[in-house]
Amino acid sequence: MTPQGTSLIGQQAVTGDQAVIRAIDPARGETLAPDYPGLGRDEVVRACQLAETAFASYRESSLEDRAAFLETVASEIEALGDALVERAMAETGLPRARIEGERGRTCGQLRLFASVVRAGEWLDVRIDPALPEREPMPRVDLRQRHLALGPVAVFGASNFPLAFSVAGGDTASALAAGCPVVVKAHSAHPGTSELVGRAVQAAVAKCQLPEGVFSVLFGSGKEIGQALVADPRIQAVGFTGSRSGGLALQQTAQNRPQPIPVYAEMSSINPVFLLPEALQSRGKEIAEGFVGSLNMGAGQFCTNPGLVIGIKGEGLDTFLSTAGQGIHGSAAQTMLTPGIHAAYQDGVGSLAGNSSVREVARGQAGEGPHQCQPALFVASASDFLADEAMQAEVFGAGGLVVECADVEEMRRVAEALEGQLTATLQMDDGDLATSRQLLPLLERKAGRILANGWPTGVEVCHAMVHGGPFPATSDSRTTSVGSAAIHRFLRPVCYQNLPEGLLPEALKDDNPLKISRLVDGKRD
Amino acid sequence: MTPQGTSLIGQQAVTGDQAVIRAIDPARGETLAPDYPGLGRDEVVRACQLAETAFASYRESSLEDRAAFLETVASEIEALGDALVERAMAETGLPRARIEGERGRTCGQLRLFASVVRAGEWLDVRIDPALPEREPMPRVDLRQRHLALGPVAVFGASNFPLAFSVAGGDTASALAAGCPVVVKAHSAHPGTSELVGRAVQAAVAKCQLPEGVFSVLFGSGKEIGQALVADPRIQAVGFTGSRSGGLALQQTAQNRPQPIPVYAEMSSINPVFLLPEALQSRGKEIAEGFVGSLNMGAGQFCTNPGLVIGIKGEGLDTFLSTAGQGIHGSAAQTMLTPGIHAAYQDGVGSLAGNSSVREVARGQAGEGPHQCQPALFVASASDFLADEAMQAEVFGAGGLVVECADVEEMRRVAEALEGQLTATLQMDDGDLATSRQLLPLLERKAGRILANGWPTGVEVCHAMVHGGPFPATSDSRTTSVGSAAIHRFLRPVCYQNLPEGLLPEALKDDNPLKISRLVDGKRD
Repeated sequence: MTPQGTSLIGQQAVTGDQAVIRAIDPARGETLAPDYPGLGRDEVVRACQLAETAFASYRESSLEDRAAFLETVASEIEALGDALVERAMAETGLPRARIEGERGRTCGQLRLFASVVRAGEWLDVRIDPALPEREPMPRVDLRQRHLALGPVAVFGASNFPLAFSVAGGDTASALAAGCPVVVKAHSAHPGTSELVGRAVQAAVAKCQLPEGVFSVLFGSGKEIGQALVADPRIQAVGFTGSRSGGLALQQTAQNRPQPIPVYAEMSSINPVFLLPEALQSRGKEIAEGFVGSLNMGAGQFCTNPGLVIGIKGEGLDTFLSTAGQGIHGSAAQTMLTPGIHAAYQDGVGSLAGNSSVREVARGQAGEGPHQCQPALFVASASDFLADEAMQAEVFGAGGLVVECADVEEMRRVAEALEGQLTATLQMDDGDLATSRQLLPLLERKAGRILANGWPTGVEVCHAMVHGGPFPATSDSRTTSVGSAAIHRFLRPVCYQNLPEGLLPEALKDDNPLKISRLVDGKRD
Repeated sequence: MTPQGTSLIGQQAVTGDQAVIRAIDPARGETLAPDYPGLGRDEVVRACQLAETAFASYRESSLEDRAAFLETVASEIEALGDALVERAMAETGLPRARIEGERGRTCGQLRLFASVVRAGEWLDVRIDPALPEREPMPRVDLRQRHLALGPVAVFGASNFPLAFSVAGGDTASALAAGCPVVVKAHSAHPGTSELVGRAVQAAVAKCQLPEGVFSVLFGSGKEIGQALVADPRIQAVGFTGSRSGGLALQQTAQNRPQPIPVYAEMSSINPVFLLPEALQSRGKEIAEGFVGSLNMGAGQFCTNPGLVIGIKGEGLDTFLSTAGQGIHGSAAQTMLTPGIHAAYQDGVGSLAGNSSVREVARGQAGEGPHQCQPALFVASASDFLADEAMQAEVFGAGGLVVECADVEEMRRVAEALEGQLTATLQMDDGDLATSRQLLPLLERKAGRILANGWPTGVEVCHAMVHGGPFPATSDSRTTSVGSAAIHRFLRPVCYQNLPEGLLPEALKDDNPLKISRLVDGKRD
């Protein structure tokens, strides 16, 4: 299959008549065919109307039908074969192994949500049977289940053209919850988006679902992205991207006559704390691990470890010199888009131009266009604490090391941090007491806390939290990766004294769905 | 114990120096001693600082300690004895049986949350053990639990001086989650608020908890209420009251450098659908039930059935004439405050002055001040559909009946409704098909759906949803009554490869808390 340059509204391919979007091969700086003429607001309305129509039946599709649909989406994506891999490589500059791995992750994620749908935990069924004899007042029969919120708008991310894009985690979890999805495709990888969109479209047809279950739109974020969030049929928004982009959508969502939740995953610098014993016993090894994580994918991960905090001394000096050598020897890698590359240059420039910041090392300069030259800087904790700008995310392989006088200053740095997706402790057994001091602070700052690992690499599983306090995300109560992501698109409804013939399957007396239920507060 | 006229900040009694708040006995129109001088912003800061300090240890208090604290709060409220009942009666005009019942509900609610804390379901523990042999990549060890958000601001409601006030559902669920609470007391029942506040304060001391776990502040909502929501230490807000009040707090919360969730329960007219067979077979009985529910507590319930929808015909005529007689024979009841009474008069006046609306009956005029004279109106569905103003909540015993031409028009009325706390079907077996048509519409409009009951009376249990789509509440994903209310004050945190010595109790291998856990996606 080759991309045609069209949006997909339900089962139709639609060609817009607004400003054209063109993919750029960042490795060559060349435009890729075909053109994607942008849609206008009328097409947004059409996609939302179709989604609203589809919602009525899709939200009550059987667990098995919905799970089979998610699995069919995965098979259809795999059936695109190498055409998808090559298009994604061309549009992102990412290497084949990464794109193939990401495709595996995307399809695995869809299949995980299929198993989640079947297990039915997400329904959070609660039954409090009637107590007609209770004194002083009888209790009525009360049953609760969770229901899909309604049509969901998903904004694809630039840095995961498959796993956080058209059929990525937001789409998979919204579809699993029973919500139709309207995707605003990211303009950096339109061909990839169209191909994946056609795979989902084919799955909708194969599973004989109403066509409005899925649409993917190309066009201006400021125009149709905003129009999508403002559309009265849309009931929630999933977004991964910049802080300014997330906040703009959040504002639109709040200003609607009926405000809706926005799940925006925005910015994080993912602090890594080097505890004294660990630093002393394996500073070199930690430095190597750090450089590997910082450089991975040209540093273009939400969980890239952009900030390292250690205590001044021999151990930290060893870390800095090893990390500096590693950075110095690092090859440049092509970044996702010219815009991301320019922002990286700006961010590194700001650090380099800050008189309180010293450059530790730069990596090899690139030969092609839009290449990320890794960079490592160091500053004192007191300067870091005095300058909020040093907490700004530099998206790419740029890192800042903060030198503290002692554990107490390290604690103050932890306290001063904004909300984060992750926080990491590099610790040995002898660091347990210090770790226990830091842990409560980090629990308030981050959604995921790691010991002796690196934050890049986000497992798609049940216990994962890819989220965190503002500004890491707009809603710290949720995760955008892992099975718990489904809860973002659900709300509880309680049924009082409904006759058996009117009760939803999940709530019937004999538990026909065979799901775990809370009966009188106890597990069934 | 007699009220002293003071705010309570931690273990201290504090007298403010701002504008004085005075309770009014609405039945007599007389001011009640003592005066409550309002606090200023400095005292808000002090209460929030204490709460922040207390949070560090309170959030990690053992399940048993936290449960025992909630139970002690209940005992201390009971120990206030008749002094509390009499003060609450004087400040609200509500009869003794109602206040005693509400006290029972309030203490029962605290004890329910004690049992919820002990059971530990709220921790939502998920464990995905390491898979070192997995190909192509090993899986790390990942464990998730839920943690308290931080200090919570609670705004007491006027209409439940105990159950939705100082130690009501918001406070109980926030304390259960591990969040310190700062209450902005409702100015309509300051004596009741102080007495209950002193009971909580005593429980904090008895349980040797840090004093900042609880404070209760008197003062201007616009001044200290807004300051409280804007304080950077506050991490969530619980509110029950008017739409304008809820939206104002929501806006403040969104405009903070770090936005926070606001759980505002605002307005609902709780539609009741009279289905044809039920109307025909028992229109008279339904009318009597309706009048009882409408009049209960002078109609001052969030779930008061303010809207009735039926199909024109003999059955509805019988309903109207019986309900009209019932209303006509209804005595006036004292309303909670002069302000609420004035708003009721305005609301009824608007309906009476609407040329599309016909008055069915008025109840007996009151003899004392601030009495609610019940009122029932009727309008055609086409007029109702053409005039959004008819959906405005009239807080008090005022109701509107909407006459539809047929089931299809009834469906259109259902579709046109704003979000509601409840929706009720009066149905017989022969109405099952019609009910099945309406149910999917009502599921999108309301948090609780009843058959053949009345929405007043909200059971405090596990399956309850006292919530619903905007504008019924600001967050349809939650409930403010029942054990699920605890989830509003929690967020997930994931721990990756933490050594056993650093893991929280809830996540340790041998499950020392003996709680239900999701292991590899399956119930333990």
